[in-house]
Amino acid sequence: MKPFSYEIHSRDGAARCGAFYTPHGILQTPVFAPVGTRATVKALTPAQLKELNATLVLANAYHLYLRPGDELVSSFGGVHQFMAWEGPMLTDSGGFQVFSHGDQRKVDEDGVTFRSHIDGSEHRFTPEKSIAIQENLGADIIMAFDECAVPDNRRYVENAMQRTHAWAVRCVNAKTRDDQALFGIVQGGIYPDLRRESADFITALNTPGIAIGGLSVGESKEEMAAMIETVVPRLPENKPRYLMGVGSPEDIVNGVIRGIDIFDCVLPTRMARNYAALTRLGQLNLRNAVFREDKRPIDPTCTCYTCRTFNRGYLRHLATTKEMLSATLISIHNLHTLIQLARDLQLAIQEQRIDAFSTEFLNNYQKHRPPEV
Amino acid sequence: MKPFSYEIHSRDGAARCGAFYTPHGILQTPVFAPVGTRATVKALTPAQLKELNATLVLANAYHLYLRPGDELVSSFGGVHQFMAWEGPMLTDSGGFQVFSHGDQRKVDEDGVTFRSHIDGSEHRFTPEKSIAIQENLGADIIMAFDECAVPDNRRYVENAMQRTHAWAVRCVNAKTRDDQALFGIVQGGIYPDLRRESADFITALNTPGIAIGGLSVGESKEEMAAMIETVVPRLPENKPRYLMGVGSPEDIVNGVIRGIDIFDCVLPTRMARNYAALTRLGQLNLRNAVFREDKRPIDPTCTCYTCRTFNRGYLRHLATTKEMLSATLISIHNLHTLIQLARDLQLAIQEQRIDAFSTEFLNNYQKHRPPEV
Repeated sequence: MKPFSYEIHSRDGAARCGAFYTPHGILQTPVFAPVGTRATVKALTPAQLKELNATLVLANAYHLYLRPGDELVSSFGGVHQFMAWEGPMLTDSGGFQVFSHGDQRKVDEDGVTFRSHIDGSEHRFTPEKSIAIQENLGADIIMAFDECAVPDNRRYVENAMQRTHAWAVRCVNAKTRDDQALFGIVQGGIYPDLRRESADFITALNTPGIAIGGLSVGESKEEMAAMIETVVPRLPENKPRYLMGVGSPEDIVNGVIRGIDIFDCVLPTRMARNYAALTRLGQLNLRNAVFREDKRPIDPTCTCYTCRTFNRGYLRHLATTKEMLSATLISIHNLHTLIQLARDLQLAIQEQRIDAFSTEFLNNYQKHRPPEV
Repeated sequence: MKPFSYEIHSRDGAARCGAFYTPHGILQTPVFAPVGTRATVKALTPAQLKELNATLVLANAYHLYLRPGDELVSSFGGVHQFMAWEGPMLTDSGGFQVFSHGDQRKVDEDGVTFRSHIDGSEHRFTPEKSIAIQENLGADIIMAFDECAVPDNRRYVENAMQRTHAWAVRCVNAKTRDDQALFGIVQGGIYPDLRRESADFITALNTPGIAIGGLSVGESKEEMAAMIETVVPRLPENKPRYLMGVGSPEDIVNGVIRGIDIFDCVLPTRMARNYAALTRLGQLNLRNAVFREDKRPIDPTCTCYTCRTFNRGYLRHLATTKEMLSATLISIHNLHTLIQLARDLQLAIQEQRIDAFSTEFLNNYQKHRPPEV
């Protein structure tokens, strides 16, 4: 298959199951991607990631630009070789991080000037700079430089969207490598007319995939669903759709049934470092004293290394004593839960039972959430 | 073979290569044992330990008694099942930790009263209590409850040795499980006559293995070597000899050529958490800026996962950004270095070239140490 072509194998309602071809392997979709912000999925080796069936791994242009520097990563052969991940990779553009981590940022039509959150040094990102960084990093999928505006000020959101559109055009023009797929990003906050305008604008750029940004940033579940339902029907059928930064179990199911193909989120690994385990029936906080004598695995239905090997009582001991191994073991479980959920969704779509699967899943999940066991 | 029998396969000078039979498998000696203080070798999964050819793993009676409690570990089937380590295990008696971690300790002839370093609660260890804890934990090798006195006060060292002897007798009498081997511990500081007396006393107890304690606690390399040379000739040939808490590369070589079979040390994992890598030519501090662009593995001759997969530049990046993965990857390398060194020493003994091996090793090591590369 041609690199960056997307082949849909099955459809069930709005949901699709397909394959996206990259220079480092095939992404079977729907897919959940672990986040390796600084060229490491925290507390996990690439061998462990592979064992839990991760395919796509993210890294972060902003963080790697600051440390160790994208040119240094390039001198090591790019981010794949640097972190020893042989499968498909995606870098985000730095847009989101400049706005969420960069201090004293000044946005103008040309780009953003900001201070490093590490040492206060001044830096400037433009669409061209973001693409240059991402070309140095060398991921298979790179993202347009965008501005993700929080949805409480329509005027600001509209201006940010217009900038995002202008910057997307510049990213398309700046891109030089043909072994990377640039994805445009739809913005527009929680405003349906802006989302429609943005979907049409980004679609017209004809990038090999399209992302939906600016969701899971404080809006309600209903608003998120409404925005996905507004945007997806306007996107081309034959390109993968990536819902950025979204990745709770229910958000993944809710996204897939509305036609989303790719997800990523720091949630599973961040929760793991706080001793919280994700299951299909809600969360467990493994510091909780109720697990002291519990001989069950985190999730008796789970097939991950952690659940095959350790019980809740041992994990509670690691959590209580703040042992580093707890982050590793819970991260393995949490990532496996989401990666396996995406695989189960693939199967449900292939077997034309996505309605039944998602209804049952969401009912069970709602019933058990939010009280922590 | 009978459990806890020790079969010597080869001898070369004072060095021996053999096999110690335990209910959880055979220990090929000389062997280096990683330390899993709180039932976890920090930052490593049991699968990773197995991959780096660890055989014997330690855990700590004092720490597990305090958290999560030895009775709880027992209810989980013992420390093997609790931490999912299927190979041979050893617990130390808590003696060393009561004296190094316990606050406000009061020693009397019967035992030690101390306060927990965690919450200040009062506890009391006696030889009988230590054996009961270690029987709950269920390791293959358990240790006599001893007092490790620092070597600067002969009178105190002598008194502590006498207590250690009386306590060793009580440990032998208190022991009830026949699937555990109790090792006696020779003490006596840096005083040859005390060491001789202690070696003879402990030998007379006829335990299936004998440990040498109270070394690597501040004395010089020459004093350590002299004490080993004083003790070893008085020990029975057909029992394994365990040099407690000792484990730098040169100390292992120096121990093996003087007839030591078993070593353990927190050094390789503790150093790893401080970004220091052990090699046969000295240490590397991976935070050092000289490694920024270094495309070599930590040790080009090493076959561990870390050296097969990652270069110094990437590890320096992980160290600089304090990523958890650095502790995992450097621990894998450091432990592999010592475990492989013990295996190389086995081979050198089998091939009757321990003199040449140790002379070359120690010359290279001395030449490159201490300046950090």
